[in-house]
Amino acid sequence: MQKKGNKYGTHRVIEPQGLLTQAAKKIDNTMECYSNEILCDVSALNIDSASFTQIYEACGKDLGKTEQMILDIVNERGKMQNPVTGSGGMFIGTVREIGEDLAGKIDLKVGDKIASLVSLSLTPLKINKIKAIHPEIDRVDVDAQAILFESGLYAKLPDDMSEELALAALDVAGAPAQTAKLVKPGDSVLILGGAGKGGMMCCYEAMKRVGPTGNVVALVICQEDADLLKSMNLCHHAIVGSATNPVEVLEKSLAVNGGKEYDVSILIVNVPACEMAAILPVHDNGTVYFFSMATDFAKAALGAEGCGKDVTMIVGNGYTKDHAEITLSELRENPQLKAYFEKKYL
Amino acid sequence: MQKKGNKYGTHRVIEPQGLLTQAAKKIDNTMECYSNEILCDVSALNIDSASFTQIYEACGKDLGKTEQMILDIVNERGKMQNPVTGSGGMFIGTVREIGEDLAGKIDLKVGDKIASLVSLSLTPLKINKIKAIHPEIDRVDVDAQAILFESGLYAKLPDDMSEELALAALDVAGAPAQTAKLVKPGDSVLILGGAGKGGMMCCYEAMKRVGPTGNVVALVICQEDADLLKSMNLCHHAIVGSATNPVEVLEKSLAVNGGKEYDVSILIVNVPACEMAAILPVHDNGTVYFFSMATDFAKAALGAEGCGKDVTMIVGNGYTKDHAEITLSELRENPQLKAYFEKKYL
Repeated sequence: MQKKGNKYGTHRVIEPQGLLTQAAKKIDNTMECYSNEILCDVSALNIDSASFTQIYEACGKDLGKTEQMILDIVNERGKMQNPVTGSGGMFIGTVREIGEDLAGKIDLKVGDKIASLVSLSLTPLKINKIKAIHPEIDRVDVDAQAILFESGLYAKLPDDMSEELALAALDVAGAPAQTAKLVKPGDSVLILGGAGKGGMMCCYEAMKRVGPTGNVVALVICQEDADLLKSMNLCHHAIVGSATNPVEVLEKSLAVNGGKEYDVSILIVNVPACEMAAILPVHDNGTVYFFSMATDFAKAALGAEGCGKDVTMIVGNGYTKDHAEITLSELRENPQLKAYFEKKYL
Repeated sequence: MQKKGNKYGTHRVIEPQGLLTQAAKKIDNTMECYSNEILCDVSALNIDSASFTQIYEACGKDLGKTEQMILDIVNERGKMQNPVTGSGGMFIGTVREIGEDLAGKIDLKVGDKIASLVSLSLTPLKINKIKAIHPEIDRVDVDAQAILFESGLYAKLPDDMSEELALAALDVAGAPAQTAKLVKPGDSVLILGGAGKGGMMCCYEAMKRVGPTGNVVALVICQEDADLLKSMNLCHHAIVGSATNPVEVLEKSLAVNGGKEYDVSILIVNVPACEMAAILPVHDNGTVYFFSMATDFAKAALGAEGCGKDVTMIVGNGYTKDHAEITLSELRENPQLKAYFEKKYL
């Protein structure tokens, strides 16, 4: 009988005790499956871009040295977490074994091809061999194994689209799924950063949700992006401006919403100091959803108080129920969006 | 007829244009009231603690030099915003003039004594004279004037408690009012940092809201605080531990909630790296309220995803409707809490 591990993987923390696997310096990467773990054969690591760039440049862009540094990190830490950036990435692999407490209770079977949707920075990993490094896409082909905890997230890779397209979409999976939960029929929605990968998916989802009486407005940085979004029917109005200029955003956004403040704003511009542009256009009791990782907690908290805005501000959570399926379905539903992603992100 | 200004005060920004008054380097402190402004005679500045400490120490704890530095900052910027810390504070004063667009429409009349609840870092201020500096309480007695914008927040100082007590409570006014909005009958609520000023008020409010079938649990740092909270009937259970140790908090908190995950957690410990301790004990679709200004946005966002937690994470907003009145009412309702605050914080 297999031993049962902790739902979050704390049974594999070696040091320091008391922390979770992401914060830990070193975790146990013994490739034996606990009863509530999933053991996977790993074929490729998609290293986080910040992490890969740091390692590659520290090695003078020498592939042999890069290979050795990646092996050293994983041998030392039991996981592929860059000690400088702290970040990880994701893996692609095949299910080899499902612990007996999970077997039959989850939507996976041995042999399924999956992508991990939790970070490599918390995932037990053992590399037998690095086969190839592709610096242009931060990808490392490996012969390796990894463990997913009971709380770990994954997506089965679909048969009806390329692996590359699925991964490009899953990379921002949280955003459209949270938009689906948040936006109600008739809502007015302001999406700051509508022309990025996550932004387009949020726009499409918001257009579906608001229905005929809603209003979806995208803020973009140039007229070309505005024309693109309109031509793809991803918004009712596109306005051009910088999210670092809250007064400009307030004026332009109200002008295309009949002078009224918005029910919801979604910030998905990965640039600092955009908090106020997301807060100001929303009415009291409305919702501000911060999806940008450049969001500053104190600027948001103090900024809303400073202008007397009684808005609910939500920290973007990369996970919500069915987020992978919702995201992949968007590409199936919207061939134009799928074609654009294939052209732009592959 | 008076000119009308912008609701958020942008008409007073001198440079750089396009920003709000908090982010601006210099604002117009001409003490003439626009039609949607309130002009106040200011008797005292409660300087933000971080700001006062920085100025006082930079002046070698010399009161004359401290006075001059404060005057220089306000003359230069048009507001009392410390250029090093970026922070402000609040003022106490008396209403001198209410702009004609606001007169009769707000709950203030000329002569009312108020405290500002928006930061001095965004408030037009002109100091005629500094009368005294009280370094032990970061307070500066002044002959000055200030402007509140239409969006500006304030509280009328009550007749039935001392000014000092009211200010001590108003300092954390957002927290109990948000708790009142968030907590529902029957909820289980975990309050991390229950024994601080804001923590006690959140505990009291949560106890009121959950009713007989709820469970309010406070995490505190030592047994004395646990005994204190229990003796004041501010929680059902108090557990002792550090919010920087998520595994310990998870285990201890579930143990006093029948093994079940919580509906709501409220983080009000002003120490970094407490995000996971607030996230882990909450069930999917539950709510995590971050009131600590030490909260790191990325740690919260990536941490929830890393452990597959589908929780709603909210950025603590220092303002919500009626927040000052809710906070002062708590002290009126609970004489024991009022007596404790008078002993501890005055």
